[in-house]
This record gives sequence, structure tokens and C-alpha cells, in this order.
Amino acid sequence: MDGSTGGSPARQGSIRAMNERLLLDHIRRGEGVSRADLARVTGLSKPTVSVALANLERAGLVRSAGIRTGVPGPAAVLYELRPEAGFVLGLDVGRQFLRAAICDFTGAVRARATVKARATSPGRLAGLAELAGGLYAEVGIGPGDITQTVLGTPGVHDARRDVLDLAGSLPGWDKPLVLAELRRAFGENLMVENDVDAAALAERAHGHGREVDSFAFVSVGTGIGMGLVLNGRLHRGAHGAAGEIGYLPLGDAETTDTRDARRRGGLEAAASAAGIVRAARRNGMRGAASARHVFAAADKGDATAARVVAEEARLIAKAICSVVAVVDPELVVLGGGVGQAAGFLGAISRELRRIAPVLPELRVSALGVDAVVDGCLVAGADRAWSAVAAVLENGEEGAPGPAGKQVS
Amino acid sequence: MDGSTGGSPARQGSIRAMNERLLLDHIRRGEGVSRADLARVTGLSKPTVSVALANLERAGLVRSAGIRTGVPGPAAVLYELRPEAGFVLGLDVGRQFLRAAICDFTGAVRARATVKARATSPGRLAGLAELAGGLYAEVGIGPGDITQTVLGTPGVHDARRDVLDLAGSLPGWDKPLVLAELRRAFGENLMVENDVDAAALAERAHGHGREVDSFAFVSVGTGIGMGLVLNGRLHRGAHGAAGEIGYLPLGDAETTDTRDARRRGGLEAAASAAGIVRAARRNGMRGAASARHVFAAADKGDATAARVVAEEARLIAKAICSVVAVVDPELVVLGGGVGQAAGFLGAISRELRRIAPVLPELRVSALGVDAVVDGCLVAGADRAWSAVAAVLENGEEGAPGPAGKQVS
Repeated sequence: MDGSTGGSPARQGSIRAMNERLLLDHIRRGEGVSRADLARVTGLSKPTVSVALANLERAGLVRSAGIRTGVPGPAAVLYELRPEAGFVLGLDVGRQFLRAAICDFTGAVRARATVKARATSPGRLAGLAELAGGLYAEVGIGPGDITQTVLGTPGVHDARRDVLDLAGSLPGWDKPLVLAELRRAFGENLMVENDVDAAALAERAHGHGREVDSFAFVSVGTGIGMGLVLNGRLHRGAHGAAGEIGYLPLGDAETTDTRDARRRGGLEAAASAAGIVRAARRNGMRGAASARHVFAAADKGDATAARVVAEEARLIAKAICSVVAVVDPELVVLGGGVGQAAGFLGAISRELRRIAPVLPELRVSALGVDAVVDGCLVAGADRAWSAVAAVLENGEEGAPGPAGKQVS
Repeated sequence: MDGSTGGSPARQGSIRAMNERLLLDHIRRGEGVSRADLARVTGLSKPTVSVALANLERAGLVRSAGIRTGVPGPAAVLYELRPEAGFVLGLDVGRQFLRAAICDFTGAVRARATVKARATSPGRLAGLAELAGGLYAEVGIGPGDITQTVLGTPGVHDARRDVLDLAGSLPGWDKPLVLAELRRAFGENLMVENDVDAAALAERAHGHGREVDSFAFVSVGTGIGMGLVLNGRLHRGAHGAAGEIGYLPLGDAETTDTRDARRRGGLEAAASAAGIVRAARRNGMRGAASARHVFAAADKGDATAARVVAEEARLIAKAICSVVAVVDPELVVLGGGVGQAAGFLGAISRELRRIAPVLPELRVSALGVDAVVDGCLVAGADRAWSAVAAVLENGEEGAPGPAGKQVS
């Protein structure tokens, strides 16, 4: 559609924005596409495509990427996204490590780094700032070039009180000051993403989640949580608490540390790494130092350890059964240190078969330690993409100016 | 937009279909709207509106509804949906009663009826056919005028095996023959809707669900189930089993009838009406005849009955806590004979406060015994509406003919 269409000016503007967004989506997917390619796939006329491309180029969002050669017909100018149109900084705050990465507007990772985490909130904040500073230098940009920062963290952002909530595994991290300091260090354009939700987004972009519409990423390690993708989108819930399956009321009341159950949720108290160690000690494994230790002992034939691991599989199978009974996902991906332990999926699968109304596909995550930070980049790119759409819409009143920095 | 726009014929066709659909949506919402009203709210030109209205009238979907008078300016022809453009038959197969209703294309209920259910599948099938026959006569239509039939039933339609599955409370209802007989009686245009999902749709259209984007309708009675509405749409899950919360692994293994738990799910075996009666008898209430009886005794101060009711509240609170931990809905609506019992919501709310990560709003359903059949009508109207959109799209190649019957 071009400007000669009937209808009010407002409608014309939003049709123009829709056309530009449509082209941008196609340019994002392809690797260098021509005007003729774009006209063919969108059904728009060539003059309409030309006008929209000129606008996108002026806005600094796309650039020409050379000439297509070696095919019959006249040589065609190819277009691609301009990588520098925006940068996303992803930050992963774990109990043991801090990780960070930067990607550009095309989604390409430009730099990444990891450091050991310090145990206090000020220590974590300083560590994140240092990590980011190193990445800016590596990429050759300043903090002002980052158009979206995404922080992956345990817990959820309680927008009403503006604090990080339910972040039981990071003591002190729920103080109001923490968010204020983060904004001072990384700017107002900071978005908080639950760490397991971020890992689910990485699973959707790079892992088993690529192949399905709906899946649950269930992480079992120092904490227990889930990222739920429905119809291709992360489902966050009315209070951002969707997927907080650590709170499933599945721990056994007599054997669970009830103070821990109140603070971290029934399932997490019973079945997280610390819960496994407690169960092992309760069963007489005095030397049980870690969940890894218990799993290794079970593997070597220790009967007590095997009983603890079997009970852990029963609990996680009950958790997955709960997820199935509520949302019935196509696929469940198991992640986290405990979730990815060898043979654990088989044990869960046998238990699940006994109790679940239907069986989802079960798979172990193939993503490594960068899953959370990579998911933050995915979330940031999604957000930057929405911002572009908003700017294109708001550009209605006049021709879009050289908006480069703001839009991306 | 009118036909003078650039672009391919296919695109023009789908723009025309979009315009017609847009007008139809506005006509559906208003009570008699004029050409000028439609041009104003849609932003389309008056000639474009005229062409689209003529097409919709020719297709038998809208009709003129008289002249607007009593306002300044020239008299305007008002348009409304043609009620006879399509009829939906809703059927509710319960354990005790069969219910049926017919609504027209505007959603207005034209007739409804109820009979006692017979206990066998052939008895149920015959009962439904008689019920429908009576309604056709009352409305003055034939079976051929029904454009969509929706059957509300316990369990889910397993499309792969083409049987009704998980319908534990209706013995024999999962035989392949049942669906074949239903199609013979009501035609191929038969859609199966889980009964609790249907009640959730009624709640969305007529009850507490009108006010929110996401809610869970939790029904506790002879069975236990949930209808989950996310972003305004019923969430069915990958196998149609979303909301089968009877299978939550929450029953106490020692006290639950495990054969029943396998067949009907852990929570349903422990906390459905039959589970309540079993718990009462186990606790020494020999005369406990029904869940209603136990609740009444608790109300009158019977300590044993009160303990059973308190335990029931604990179980349902755990179930709602599970739903919150997985999807975090804005609102939970309690339905069913047990769920709607006086004072029950308060007891659940107190338990939930102790265990849930965040608290949804809790309300008791205000809908009565017609909720399932009314939800079937909602589901059927939605389906009929999608069929209209499909026909408008397919009308692309030429002008839409007098498609009345097929489209609606």
C-alpha cells in the first residue's frame, strides 16, 4: 500500500509503520535481501518498498550490504540490519559466578566474560560494573551505546514495591537499595528477568525449545524454578510469579525444614541441592558434602545414596506432573546442576509415567553455563525490537528523522 | 481502504475480507449501527463501508434494522447481525443431568431444557437426541439449521485415537463408538469441550472472568477440574489435558484409594465429593452419605466433620497453590457443588496465605447449573465466528455469493 490510499492520515501513518515493520522483520530473517525479494515476499508494490527502505535507512536501522552477483538479471542492492543500531548488555547474577555478554542489533554476541561472585550485595554490584566495563572496552563502545540492559537474577521483580522478591538464594538481594544501585550503574533502561525464565528464552532461541510452540524449562540445582513458554512467548503471570515451582506444596511436612519451606517454598526446601544433602544426612550419609557427592555415591552403588536420588526423582516427577495437570506443555526440558545429572531423566520419566494424565516429551537441556546470560540477550533483543516498532508507529506525524540512537 | 489501492489481487482480497470482518465485529458489539457510525469507528471511507455492508448483507450475515429517528440530521439506516445466519446447539452431559440450549447468531439463547441422565452410554445418547429434538421444535428450526454443535463432557477429546479420554466419572463414555454415535445424531460439525473448560468460558462471558485477562476456574464436586483462561483465551494444552488438576499428586498416599487415584488422579481421589465421604467414614462418621451431608454436619458443630472439611480446604488450597506456582493467574474462581459451599472459600484463603508465593484474587462462581451448557454456546459462537472469517477470506476470488448457510 502506498500513500494514495483512502482513509484518514492517522491510518495512513500506521499502515506505513506496519509496512516498515514488515520489511524489517524480513530483513532480520534473511541474510541480505533485495528490493525485489522484499516486494515478492510482502506483496507490497516496489515503489512502496523503496519508500519504506529509505525511511529505515535514514533511521539508521538498515544498511546496504553490497550487490548480489552471479545470478541472471540486473545486479540488485542487498539490505541488512545495521549492527550498530543498538547493543544489548546481558548480566547473570548467580550465587557462584557473575556472567555478562553484549550483543548487537543483529543478535550477534560481541563479547562475554565471567568472574567469581562475591557473597554480599555491594560485592555483587561492584563485580557486575567491572565485568561490564571490560566488555565495553572489548567491543569498543561506551555505556551510552547500550540501548537495553537485562539482569538475570533469582526471584522476580515486584513492580508495586520496586524490589527483587523471592530471591531466597541471594541473601540481601531483596533490599530496595539494590535496584537503585543497579539503575545508577546501568541506567534506567534496565530490565529484570528471572534467571530461569532467561534460561528458558535461551532454550527457545538456541535449544530444544526451537522446535515446539509450548514447553517448560525446569531447573533443579541450588534453587528450583521453571520458565514457561506458551504459544512461543514467555508466560510471566499476573505477579511475575509464574514458574515459581519451588513453591509447589510437595515437600514432606515431617522431613522438610519448615522455616526453609516458608522462605523458599515447599518443593525447593525438600528437593533443591541443599534438600538433597539434608535428606542424605538424615538417612545416615554423614559425609554427604554436596548433591553432586550424593549422586556420585548412588552411581557407585551406595544404597542409601540411591534411595535419596530415587526420592528426589519422585519429587521432581510430582513437580512435572503438576505442570502437566495445569498447562500440559508439549515438552519439558530439564536443566540445572541436579536436573542435568546423568540418568536422572530416566528415573523421573519412570515415575511420571505412573502418575501423569498425559506425557510430555522429556529432554535434558544441552545448553551450558551461558544459558542465563544468553537468555538475557534474547529478552533484550525482543525488547529493543518492540521499541523499534513503537518508534516507527510514533514517527506517523512526519517523516522519521535520523532517530538511530533512540529507536534501537 | 478501497479497491484503488496498489498491491496484488490476493492482497486486495484479503484487505476486503479484513474490512468486512472489522465491520462485522463492530456490528456485533453495537445494537444497530449506521453506515456513518461504522465509517467513524473504523476509519474506513463511506464508499468502502457501503461496498462491504452490501457484501455482508448479500452473504446473509447482516440485515437492516430500521431507521434511526429522534436525532438531528438525515435519517440513517441501522444495521445489525441477522440472527438466523446460524444457530449453535450446546449439550452438557453430566452424571446426574443432561442439559441443552440453542442460541442464534447474535448469541441470544432461544430455548433450553434439562432432563435426568440415565446411567449408560446408550441412555445418555438417546437422552441428548430427545432433548435436542424438543429444542428444535421450540425454536422452529430443523437439525440442518444448527451450524455448530458443542458437547460439554468430563474428560478430553483425544484426537489421535478419536475417543473421549480421562472421563472417569462417566463409565463407558470413553468407548470409540460413543463419538461415532454422537456424530451420527448431531452431524460432523460436532465439537467436544471439556465440561469445566466450558464453565470457564461461561465465567469469561457472563461471570467474574469478564473483568480480567487471566483466571482459573476451579471446579470441585463429583470431579475436580480446572478451566484456564490466559490472555482472554482458553488454554487447552498440547494434549487437551491442561486443567486436569484432578491429577495433581496431592492426595495422601496412605489414606487415598490408590486404584481410584490411578483412574481419576491423586487429588480427585482424595478431594472430590466421594473422597470427602471416604475421609468422613474413615474418621468415624458412619452415617456420612454425601459431601453435602459432611459440610452440613461441620456447619452444625460436628467436630469430626469439621476436621474433614478443614483437611479438604487444605487440599484445595494446595491445588490452587500449585496453579499459582505454575501460571500465576490474576483470579481464581471456585465452582462446583463443594467449591461453592458456604464458608469454604474463607478456609481455603487462610491455608493459601501460608503456602503460596503470591496471592490471586479468590471468588466463588455466581453462575448456576447452566454454566456448562452456556459455555458450550460461547465456544460454539467463537467457532462460528472463525468460520465466518474463513469464508470471508475465501470469498477473495470473486464477490461473495449468497453463502448464508455455509458461512455461519
